[in-house]
Amino acid sequence: MTITGKNFIGFSRSAATESHTFQAYVPAQATHLPEKFYAATPQEVDAAMQKGTQAFDTFATTSPAQRADFLMAITREIMVLGDELLQRAHLETGLPLPRLQGERARTIMQLTQFADLLREGSWVEASIDTAEPNRSPLPKPDIRKMLVPIGPIVVFGSSNFPFAYSVAGVDTAPALAAGNPVVVKAHPAHPGVSDLTAQAIQKAAEKTGMPDGVFSMLFDDGYIVGSALVKHPATKAVGFTGSQKGGMALYKMAMERSEPIPVFAEMGSVNPVVILPESLSADTNSLAQMLAASVTLGAGQFCTNPGLVFVVESPELEDFITLYSREISNVASTTMLTEGICNTFYQLKKEALAQNAVEILALSEIKSEEQNQSQATVARVSGKAFMANPALHEEVFGPYSLLVVCASIHELETALLLLKGQLTATLMATETEVARYPSILRILAQRAGRIVMNGVPTGVEVCPSMHHGGPFPATTDSRFTSVGRHSILRFVRPQSFQGWPNALLPDVLKNENPLGIRRLVNGQESLEAIDG
Amino acid sequence: MTITGKNFIGFSRSAATESHTFQAYVPAQATHLPEKFYAATPQEVDAAMQKGTQAFDTFATTSPAQRADFLMAITREIMVLGDELLQRAHLETGLPLPRLQGERARTIMQLTQFADLLREGSWVEASIDTAEPNRSPLPKPDIRKMLVPIGPIVVFGSSNFPFAYSVAGVDTAPALAAGNPVVVKAHPAHPGVSDLTAQAIQKAAEKTGMPDGVFSMLFDDGYIVGSALVKHPATKAVGFTGSQKGGMALYKMAMERSEPIPVFAEMGSVNPVVILPESLSADTNSLAQMLAASVTLGAGQFCTNPGLVFVVESPELEDFITLYSREISNVASTTMLTEGICNTFYQLKKEALAQNAVEILALSEIKSEEQNQSQATVARVSGKAFMANPALHEEVFGPYSLLVVCASIHELETALLLLKGQLTATLMATETEVARYPSILRILAQRAGRIVMNGVPTGVEVCPSMHHGGPFPATTDSRFTSVGRHSILRFVRPQSFQGWPNALLPDVLKNENPLGIRRLVNGQESLEAIDG
Repeated sequence: MTITGKNFIGFSRSAATESHTFQAYVPAQATHLPEKFYAATPQEVDAAMQKGTQAFDTFATTSPAQRADFLMAITREIMVLGDELLQRAHLETGLPLPRLQGERARTIMQLTQFADLLREGSWVEASIDTAEPNRSPLPKPDIRKMLVPIGPIVVFGSSNFPFAYSVAGVDTAPALAAGNPVVVKAHPAHPGVSDLTAQAIQKAAEKTGMPDGVFSMLFDDGYIVGSALVKHPATKAVGFTGSQKGGMALYKMAMERSEPIPVFAEMGSVNPVVILPESLSADTNSLAQMLAASVTLGAGQFCTNPGLVFVVESPELEDFITLYSREISNVASTTMLTEGICNTFYQLKKEALAQNAVEILALSEIKSEEQNQSQATVARVSGKAFMANPALHEEVFGPYSLLVVCASIHELETALLLLKGQLTATLMATETEVARYPSILRILAQRAGRIVMNGVPTGVEVCPSMHHGGPFPATTDSRFTSVGRHSILRFVRPQSFQGWPNALLPDVLKNENPLGIRRLVNGQESLEAIDG
Repeated sequence: MTITGKNFIGFSRSAATESHTFQAYVPAQATHLPEKFYAATPQEVDAAMQKGTQAFDTFATTSPAQRADFLMAITREIMVLGDELLQRAHLETGLPLPRLQGERARTIMQLTQFADLLREGSWVEASIDTAEPNRSPLPKPDIRKMLVPIGPIVVFGSSNFPFAYSVAGVDTAPALAAGNPVVVKAHPAHPGVSDLTAQAIQKAAEKTGMPDGVFSMLFDDGYIVGSALVKHPATKAVGFTGSQKGGMALYKMAMERSEPIPVFAEMGSVNPVVILPESLSADTNSLAQMLAASVTLGAGQFCTNPGLVFVVESPELEDFITLYSREISNVASTTMLTEGICNTFYQLKKEALAQNAVEILALSEIKSEEQNQSQATVARVSGKAFMANPALHEEVFGPYSLLVVCASIHELETALLLLKGQLTATLMATETEVARYPSILRILAQRAGRIVMNGVPTGVEVCPSMHHGGPFPATTDSRFTSVGRHSILRFVRPQSFQGWPNALLPDVLKNENPLGIRRLVNGQESLEAIDG
């Protein structure tokens, strides 16, 4: 498949200007690949949004089965790209091939799960309250409700997941499933992967008869195109996974529009891990291994990476620290995603280590010949020094973690109270300890979207029970997840239909229940047809 | 029951300063009632929020049955207030007693519906994905999810519903049901009603053993207390029903906090009604009566009041206009809610009628001796003049409606495209007409939360299928309703529990399903216990 670097305006490709182009960077070699990518012009931004708006009128009325076919066609077209896609991703991101293979499988699974959700059909939360014409003092009208799509969605590809959180990832899949056109701003860290994936989506859309404009994708290595997309009047919501700074900039832009729109920004967090003494001494070695693996997984480039580990002084603590430090020291360096991420990692790490009372515990060695290599690092600080210094509460994106050694459980609780909203919080404790210190769990729970017990937070299982989100500043909206079937709720709104003749209602709400879905009928769950 | 006008800080009453007090106004007599109400000081605001925060720790862990008992106790304490409450409401709002009796019944029903929802229990959307320890390449952890409360909620009482959208109304009921403490800013238009209702809630909280701080209420006749509540760091969400100006001011304040919080502001709309020719000629008289009644119901002081009626020139149109105008002329005047609302109504009406090409069709006569009387008014304008003048697209709160007479169906469609987000949109059409002009329904649907067919939008049925909300600027968040059981979703967030021992999980998520609720177990709906 040819990578032309042109923008995708619905079914057309467009390169309106030669004056601003960029090339893909190969982090492991610190070189660039040859193809030019064309930054979209304001006219191209507008054209993509206009096409999206036009496509919405027809796309919103496609049947769930038609959209399921579209999603499954995307999975097939992605798989057809085969090794070419994986190799290109490996070059552009430095991520190892097995990881990329796994991530591609996850992306396919996400799309498939939404196709399954559409085919089952009950996700629209259909609700029917039948009329009572003889009710006194006033007759009750027939009222029915379902979730409907909202219009064109702007999706920002992420740097750290070239498949699963990018062009055909966790935002695009549910937005399309719900019936919304999507306009992707490709992440400049992997423009070739994005180009190939967008071609797959374009093909799938054409093959399954979707309207022109159901999907567009624009390139830019700066902020102009992204800002223009968020500010465009046709945009109805925004999905973003990335930095605090980037997410908040988009959020503020969206709030300042004359019509504010929701921005679902997932902006990472420090994912505190609390290890209580009995748990720490029970199997110190496994614990040290598990934690070190979680801190350094994927060069620490996960939003669920445990950046703060809270422990209490105890006789066994020094053993744990020795084992944990040894594990970290032995971690092989890996290529980081971009030059920018790598430079920022070393800069933030340096600043963190220079803070008062912070002591380095372990640094891994860089043995590779490749460029942009990560260096796993853990440091320690006392609970008191941690509490006194808010700079230590912030994320260092990469394989870095700070061990906060508290003088007592009470000090640990006080330190936890200072934490802001988190994607995850983890408690490692015996059942006796949990029962003895109930406030620890309560403090963590009030601050996190997912509470892990005696495990690590880094794996984000794709399943209905996964909530990947959390209180601000982990995300801009704690009520929504970006992973799992409920992520579709970001891109819909409820709509009521009052007094409609049965024949005119959407199939979902018709008396005969032609789709055979689960509905709330007069307040009771039902799979049945109802009397007209 | 004595009305002391003191602020409710949890279970305590407080009047920290005499320097800023106000009295209740009686709109029908243009006089004031004797009691003083004490505007809350910044210290009282802080005390209410602090108590709310403390109460949250225990209130969030009460059982659903305990909270259901609390809500039902509120209904009993409100009913105990009897005629005293209704008479006071009549004085303070000018609303007739039968309407107030109905509104009180609705408020009791809302509280009862949430008590029932809690007792049934499935509203928490419990989801369980069981572990697969032998899954390859990675074991799957046990993950479970449910909705949890978020913390103290600030509720603004509305002017036009002293019971149903005020102290114990559509925001307070679901916020408490979910396990969130509530701090109400009482509306100054009915402070005595608010005082009495708050006393009922306070009593109910004490009798059912709820924590001090689960409910507070503060007085103010200006904007200082409301602003301080929205800006307070302990506030986690805001519920508001009122004007565009008020709602947007709170929304902007909330977005500019260092931790932005959701504001659910329902800001009214013009609720367009489209009448197609066949439908208009079918039963012209009934249609004119129905529409006139809807426009003037409750002196037009409803957020679902039809402010714009679109018709097409036809031979029967002039008959309709004659009948409709006669109905409007004969409407008896009624007392408006406040002096401010009354003055604004006459001012906005005057401005609207002074616009180019606007022609008065009918004005009702004011025969009452009482003060602050409404005057039902309808005017007409051509579709062309309407499109040329955005001032005509805005709401005139009160018994006013503009008939937009379009030269053709095409002109009507073009005019509809200019409409912003609405709570409701209504189509009066025969089935043939609906089929002939599908784009009318599509244009209306894209702009409204509820689409009424061949009826009027003014009644807001309290039932699961009611969506009372709509695209901006009708509300600040089109994804949530303020009426019906799903309104509880505004005040919760999902939380995942990964790898928790069964004994430590909330009852909702325990293997044995002790509450007997409906749960999603490995993607399938189930009422059963699961194997541990």
